[in-house]
Amino acid sequence: MVEEPKYHESGFYLMRYRLRHYLAEYFGTLVLIFLGSSVVALVFLNPDVESESWLLINFAWGIAVAMALYVSMGSSGGHLNSAITISAAVYGKLPWHRVPGYIFSQILGAFTGSALTYGVYRSRFDPFDNGVRSVSGPTATGGIFCTYPNPYNTHWDSFFTEMLLTAILVFVVQGIFDPEMTPAKGFEPFIVGLLVTAIGMTTGRLTGSAMNPARDFGPRLFTAVSGWGSAPFTASGHYFWIPIVAPVIGAILGQGAYGLFIIPNRD
Amino acid sequence: MVEEPKYHESGFYLMRYRLRHYLAEYFGTLVLIFLGSSVVALVFLNPDVESESWLLINFAWGIAVAMALYVSMGSSGGHLNSAITISAAVYGKLPWHRVPGYIFSQILGAFTGSALTYGVYRSRFDPFDNGVRSVSGPTATGGIFCTYPNPYNTHWDSFFTEMLLTAILVFVVQGIFDPEMTPAKGFEPFIVGLLVTAIGMTTGRLTGSAMNPARDFGPRLFTAVSGWGSAPFTASGHYFWIPIVAPVIGAILGQGAYGLFIIPNRD
Amino acid sequence: MVEEPKYHESGFYLMRYRLRHYLAEYFGTLVLIFLGSSVVALVFLNPDVESESWLLINFAWGIAVAMALYVSMGSSGGHLNSAITISAAVYGKLPWHRVPGYIFSQILGAFTGSALTYGVYRSRFDPFDNGVRSVSGPTATGGIFCTYPNPYNTHWDSFFTEMLLTAILVFVVQGIFDPEMTPAKGFEPFIVGLLVTAIGMTTGRLTGSAMNPARDFGPRLFTAVSGWGSAPFTASGHYFWIPIVAPVIGAILGQGAYGLFIIPNRD
Amino acid sequence: MVEEPKYHESGFYLMRYRLRHYLAEYFGTLVLIFLGSSVVALVFLNPDVESESWLLINFAWGIAVAMALYVSMGSSGGHLNSAITISAAVYGKLPWHRVPGYIFSQILGAFTGSALTYGVYRSRFDPFDNGVRSVSGPTATGGIFCTYPNPYNTHWDSFFTEMLLTAILVFVVQGIFDPEMTPAKGFEPFIVGLLVTAIGMTTGRLTGSAMNPARDFGPRLFTAVSGWGSAPFTASGHYFWIPIVAPVIGAILGQGAYGLFIIPNRD
Repeated sequence: MVEEPKYHESGFYLMRYRLRHYLAEYFGTLVLIFLGSSVVALVFLNPDVESESWLLINFAWGIAVAMALYVSMGSSGGHLNSAITISAAVYGKLPWHRVPGYIFSQILGAFTGSALTYGVYRSRFDPFDNGVRSVSGPTATGGIFCTYPNPYNTHWDSFFTEMLLTAILVFVVQGIFDPEMTPAKGFEPFIVGLLVTAIGMTTGRLTGSAMNPARDFGPRLFTAVSGWGSAPFTASGHYFWIPIVAPVIGAILGQGAYGLFIIPNRD
Repeated sequence: MVEEPKYHESGFYLMRYRLRHYLAEYFGTLVLIFLGSSVVALVFLNPDVESESWLLINFAWGIAVAMALYVSMGSSGGHLNSAITISAAVYGKLPWHRVPGYIFSQILGAFTGSALTYGVYRSRFDPFDNGVRSVSGPTATGGIFCTYPNPYNTHWDSFFTEMLLTAILVFVVQGIFDPEMTPAKGFEPFIVGLLVTAIGMTTGRLTGSAMNPARDFGPRLFTAVSGWGSAPFTASGHYFWIPIVAPVIGAILGQGAYGLFIIPNRD
Repeated sequence: MVEEPKYHESGFYLMRYRLRHYLAEYFGTLVLIFLGSSVVALVFLNPDVESESWLLINFAWGIAVAMALYVSMGSSGGHLNSAITISAAVYGKLPWHRVPGYIFSQILGAFTGSALTYGVYRSRFDPFDNGVRSVSGPTATGGIFCTYPNPYNTHWDSFFTEMLLTAILVFVVQGIFDPEMTPAKGFEPFIVGLLVTAIGMTTGRLTGSAMNPARDFGPRLFTAVSGWGSAPFTASGHYFWIPIVAPVIGAILGQGAYGLFIIPNRD
Repeated sequence: MVEEPKYHESGFYLMRYRLRHYLAEYFGTLVLIFLGSSVVALVFLNPDVESESWLLINFAWGIAVAMALYVSMGSSGGHLNSAITISAAVYGKLPWHRVPGYIFSQILGAFTGSALTYGVYRSRFDPFDNGVRSVSGPTATGGIFCTYPNPYNTHWDSFFTEMLLTAILVFVVQGIFDPEMTPAKGFEPFIVGLLVTAIGMTTGRLTGSAMNPARDFGPRLFTAVSGWGSAPFTASGHYFWIPIVAPVIGAILGQGAYGLFIIPNRD
């Protein structure tokens, strides 16, 4: 049912009503990336938390996802992830004409979230790296914002891992929201957050478990234009395209597998 | 709908009925600060938990918020935070005439919570600091009760951080409670607690993420009158006003941004 | 509404129907103490987890409480704590004639839970303490089962702490279950578990935060009769009576304070 | 009520409809074991997380259980555990003719989950163990996939522990789902996950708390055929049968005890 916007008389209110999905994706991804990159900044810049850093990073990312969903799910569906947006369009859950706006809003939100993290941690960078921003070596800070692969990985290892992790993410997310299964109205954001925590905890040392083109590309762009130079795009053999392409394929596979193989019981 | 108090015949019952919002704010903030300052006391006074202290502090503060909400939300709305109280009044969600009582109850609750923490940990302070209460140096204990900024911060860094963190806190809280989004009836206290945990985990080393004038000022006053002298108010360049002023501005900005930019989907 | 037992024709079924509250308290406390004392056994007997032991102990105790409630709340109300049982009777929520049976079942359940912990960890004790069971010194294992106070505490410090912590526990529990506040039907056990986790995390190094006569006395009795001798009852100046008496007073105060001061909003 | 399958005209759709329980068990167990064995792989292969490894392993396993239930509970009931399947059949909750298919699907899912873990971690094994896969010694990796007992344990110790832990698991699970107790519709997967976390945290150093024949046998078979040789089946005195037999007896005892002794209150 389409309802008339309440304040249609005003240009501003009409505009925000028409843009509501994109605004929700923008602010949701902003919250996700601000909290997510901030926890990595805290871990990088405060060596005394190292002994608990893997739990910190993964719990914070999980809660960040939950919080981002609470400000977006009821408006845009809470994709916050271009792979999920494309997969939703492929399976007819989102009109294709909304896809570019969703993706643009997600990337912009991720860019803004990174910038805010840099904003609050600004005074801590120079004492740590003597003003030289880099993506590798003992004072590397690029990993605060976007993912870099484990040095043991070939590109194919990384591609397979990102694809599989995104497939599992999307497969389980379908189950969490399926109204014929055991959906938990109102706390799906928390459960999806736990899922992201679990995937990160269990496999995050391989590729950083990006599983999301916007989450990776937006912050990568931010670092490239804010002092880290071209390294974010050239490092690890121009790795940057893998967390863009692999998650899209993974999401399509995961959503398809759920639709094909999980049939709620109607006995 | 206004309902007659059940026991209006008695002066005491009438009084507590009229004061019910303030009582809930008082006891809620008391529970919040007792648990919150106690976990920092435990970490300061038991060096063997250092390797897990950042998780301990942030989980305990998050759960403390949830518990404080369970004893106050159904009565006063569970502000427990003067910045949220002022912002609620600005946007017409709370009558202005209740604002002074809310703030006073919150500060008094925070003061009492600190005093109870000091009460249970009393016998542990002297062996730790040889009876000299201070807010800096290796035996500083002021940080158990109120926040002190990271030494790298300028006042402007701290102000910006406290303002931004409070804005994000209030922005997401609006989403958690918005009845047109995905509210989790009865579960909101837990989710708000997780949000506080996440903000603390990710940025708490910058300003201590006070985000709440009462949470900071009440315990600061307690230390000032209980052996720490004037240092709590003069330390770090009279820092004390920043966690009072910045959160108020942040809360107003965050609540405003949510109202302007997040529009639940009604398709 | 009283409903006839389904299988009243059989002596066994009639008996278990009449004893249902006591059975639920017995098995609930058994589950609580088995998990609770087992986590302390694991920490004592596996020094490599020391760096995360305080989180482990407090999370495990909190989850143990939640699990114990899922098997008892729907039958006996899920007291699992003699202080809560006595306080419930004082305020007319439980008939006094059930109090002795509740307390006996709780103590017996705690005793059995300790015995099962000892059962599964049996082969690990002798290599750790060379067969000498003690409650103090580097190979002490008494603290696996019941609480011993911080050496800095006077009896009065411990008494005040146990009383205050139980009062806060019961005060918040009232809020969690209050149908006029924000009750969370079906996940109260989880929230109560979080509360126990938070109290333990924040203050558990003072008295072990027993807050429960049965939780402490049952396992103490188990150790006294299973190789630790009279030390569990004589150690720390006959400390054993404090976690029995102080929680009862604290529970009565906490439940009374909630009833007097927290009034749900009916506007 | 039996409902006609929606797409009965097609052979593929009819087949998947008839196999729906087995598909759900297969994919559920796959998700469970992929996440569960991956976290152990991460801990084994990244020594820097050792200081937080016990929390990581137990939280990840618990969340893995919850996620596996979200994709299976609404279809097959979400057993994911052959001991639970057999016990359900014994007490008439599952037709016996479905038992072989459930068990086969669970073992196959666990085998596939292990294989996927090995797939993503492939490039990390050789640098760690120089290409020699073993189940004991400093470069042992067998424990990533299936359980091996504590060296202090006799077979009887291990048998008793696995039996008791499974009994407690199943006993509490009955309470979590009992519609006359305090069930949390939609939230049960999370609570069951917490239960698995708690049992692991508190006793997992004794036998690895398998509590599940399929969870242990499927991955054991995977290692036996993928480079670890016969050691997975011969190690620790042919230990492999204990996590198969003991959990079945434990599950039957635990479910029976719940049915006999926990009677929801109907006053």
